[in-house]
Amino acid sequence: MTNHWRNALQKTLKDDQYSTSVSELYRHSHDESDHTPVEPEIVCFPESTEDVLAIMKIAREASVPVTPFGSGSGLEGQSIPTMHGISLNFERMNQVVKFSPEDLLVTVQPGITRLQLNSIINRHGLQFPIDPGADATIGGMTATNASGTTAVRYGVMRDQIVDLEIVLADGTLLHTGTKAKKSSSGYHLTGLFTGSEGTLGIITEITLKLHGIPEHTIAASCTFETPHQCAEAAHMILLSGIPVQRMEFVDAYSIAKVNDYGNYGLPEKHSLFFEFAGMKSAAEEEAALAQELLTDMNCENWRIAADSEERASIWKARHEMAYAYRHQAGMTITGGDVCVPISKLPELIDYARELISDSGLQGGVLGHIGDGNFHTSIAYDAKDPKQQLAAETINEKLAYRAIELEGTCTGEHGVGLGKIKYQEAEHGAAVAIMKNMKQMLDPTNLLNPGKIFA
Amino acid sequence: MTNHWRNALQKTLKDDQYSTSVSELYRHSHDESDHTPVEPEIVCFPESTEDVLAIMKIAREASVPVTPFGSGSGLEGQSIPTMHGISLNFERMNQVVKFSPEDLLVTVQPGITRLQLNSIINRHGLQFPIDPGADATIGGMTATNASGTTAVRYGVMRDQIVDLEIVLADGTLLHTGTKAKKSSSGYHLTGLFTGSEGTLGIITEITLKLHGIPEHTIAASCTFETPHQCAEAAHMILLSGIPVQRMEFVDAYSIAKVNDYGNYGLPEKHSLFFEFAGMKSAAEEEAALAQELLTDMNCENWRIAADSEERASIWKARHEMAYAYRHQAGMTITGGDVCVPISKLPELIDYARELISDSGLQGGVLGHIGDGNFHTSIAYDAKDPKQQLAAETINEKLAYRAIELEGTCTGEHGVGLGKIKYQEAEHGAAVAIMKNMKQMLDPTNLLNPGKIFA
Repeated sequence: MTNHWRNALQKTLKDDQYSTSVSELYRHSHDESDHTPVEPEIVCFPESTEDVLAIMKIAREASVPVTPFGSGSGLEGQSIPTMHGISLNFERMNQVVKFSPEDLLVTVQPGITRLQLNSIINRHGLQFPIDPGADATIGGMTATNASGTTAVRYGVMRDQIVDLEIVLADGTLLHTGTKAKKSSSGYHLTGLFTGSEGTLGIITEITLKLHGIPEHTIAASCTFETPHQCAEAAHMILLSGIPVQRMEFVDAYSIAKVNDYGNYGLPEKHSLFFEFAGMKSAAEEEAALAQELLTDMNCENWRIAADSEERASIWKARHEMAYAYRHQAGMTITGGDVCVPISKLPELIDYARELISDSGLQGGVLGHIGDGNFHTSIAYDAKDPKQQLAAETINEKLAYRAIELEGTCTGEHGVGLGKIKYQEAEHGAAVAIMKNMKQMLDPTNLLNPGKIFA
Repeated sequence: MTNHWRNALQKTLKDDQYSTSVSELYRHSHDESDHTPVEPEIVCFPESTEDVLAIMKIAREASVPVTPFGSGSGLEGQSIPTMHGISLNFERMNQVVKFSPEDLLVTVQPGITRLQLNSIINRHGLQFPIDPGADATIGGMTATNASGTTAVRYGVMRDQIVDLEIVLADGTLLHTGTKAKKSSSGYHLTGLFTGSEGTLGIITEITLKLHGIPEHTIAASCTFETPHQCAEAAHMILLSGIPVQRMEFVDAYSIAKVNDYGNYGLPEKHSLFFEFAGMKSAAEEEAALAQELLTDMNCENWRIAADSEERASIWKARHEMAYAYRHQAGMTITGGDVCVPISKLPELIDYARELISDSGLQGGVLGHIGDGNFHTSIAYDAKDPKQQLAAETINEKLAYRAIELEGTCTGEHGVGLGKIKYQEAEHGAAVAIMKNMKQMLDPTNLLNPGKIFA
């Protein structure tokens, strides 16, 4: 029986379009999180929407689960094929289908990464600014509604998408939108499939809004004595109306970690990192006003990056913080991803630091403070069940507190496996509606089963 | 049988919370469009979510349709109770439930209008910028995913909403989101109910993002010889990256109409109207750069409003254009609402002017050119079937051409009654999914029946 669908796949695809090699099964068993790896039975490499339709047909007829795989940079296990079956790797569907600089639009296949995309469009003065840190695929970023450091200015993935091409479980191929910048026609399926983590349909094409590259960019940083002061300062910058392009918080512990990792020489204090961008005089005026406001709040170590090299170095350091934690021999990392109304941030960051201190574990707090979103990075020894429980407890308490504060258990990483347990607390009666939608679109639970819902 | 549910309503509500008076039935039979009026059997005025739940229970048990009503300023007949039953007027649910200036958030009941809301929040330096022209209710604007002149800067209604409270047909009360600025948790029900025109559930509370009032605002205008040149100029301004706050096109015909109506003394040529806003130096730099670019394209009559009074007068004129057309004795107005990728605009505007000229009718073309969205306003004598057919044919041809150009039949007015016929052409296979969602959430078709789908 099992051989039957594998044989069908092997007949349908070219020889190099599938693999059951040990190394490929391993590569597709995990992402960057600490969720338990599970291997697929086979990895397929579609090269077109037609390939996806053909694979889906075989999967449907044999009731075999299909789990999409982008770059494997997810943080909640979304691409782990929990119920085995087929891992659908999009690395060969990485083309620009249509680039329309005159419309500030680009249509891409899901396997293109954000850096690949930017390398093509930047020379036209355009950018795709969403930046989750990792060089994730656009498909993966769409599936998880990713965001990152620039969301404070440009919004999240969902805000960038005007149209998706989707393959449904029943083989229907559909478009969720048009190429118009806005529309009030029909139900908003684009927003629904975005962030659905491959559980409602398989994304085979994405049309994104593009943005001009600002004429001038200024990076700056400063430090405060406490995380609480950082959060209050960020809150005040937001209220001032300065349209920051990035505004990031990193606690002293995480700064020390990244200094060790990359020799950055940053002041080892609780820090805010800023980017101001726009026309030259506007960016300069914004930076000057921010400095004035932050100085009034007793910031220290205010520094404007001297040149584009130093600016790049600041953001490289910020992005490497996630990796700095991961490079501790013998330690596993678990991370939280809470997001709350901005006025609740000082309280929640204090609570996070308190939980980490009380646990006896080592960990940092850092994140996209301009959105009210921050992460914990907690290091634990996976061979020590007590440490593992302590690490999990920190994130659990933090998630429930975020929900109490009218926030969310996941600002940008998605639900995947790790945030399933908070869905009832966060969404209440809406969970039943979500489950009904899953049931309606995927009645036999073929599409990334085991994610979002238990 | 009929008396039974009416009696139940009358027992449940206070005496002044329902009406069957001739004037109320008439008021709730139409909106500002030319769609055929239909009267409800009764108008109810809920004062709380509990009232809505109670009314819905009675409606469900008696299988009576429920059609929400905001301010009656809709343009596609969404609030017309096509199948009679109950008109649910939200004018008494017009309170601010919670204003959190520190979080740049406000939670409101659906019956509050955008001007009522702004009068409360403006004094805190905050604004709710979405501006469809009419003083619509926030509930109505949410239900139709309205936008208007500021969408080019702030996005559409859907972009402003973090949470909705919804009463479903089966009596379930749910929240679609949280108060966090962003989230990747669960399916995006907020986006789905926004723009669903009361067909999937009844909106009883809306939480909106707020924006700071810019420090400085500059209004400007200029004229060109042809609509085509206006569209090309708008396209070029967008590509330049100047973050205009408003950018509107009005053809010469419509300028003449509004001059007649309000004595504005505007140059009777094809015109662009701009607003630049932000910190003072930034707004001035943007206006100067725009002037330079537009002058290179041979614009005429460049004028910056001398003071806030002249600025207000410009936007008052722009908003009154819709009404200027309506105030022609004996004439009915029908309007299109197409939206296409910005590079297709010059072609589509030319096509619209050509269709109007060929028809022998009088009509204007005007709209939110920065979004690729524009409207036609065609005057016809409703007593003359030939004229009516000619007017409808213009909008029909325009809508189909917009869809061919990868755009939408409705940029911001919604589907309602008038755009049903384009749903298959625009959405294809997705229409079946939308119908399934309607069937799932409202199996007995109680909620605003006859809208969006035939």
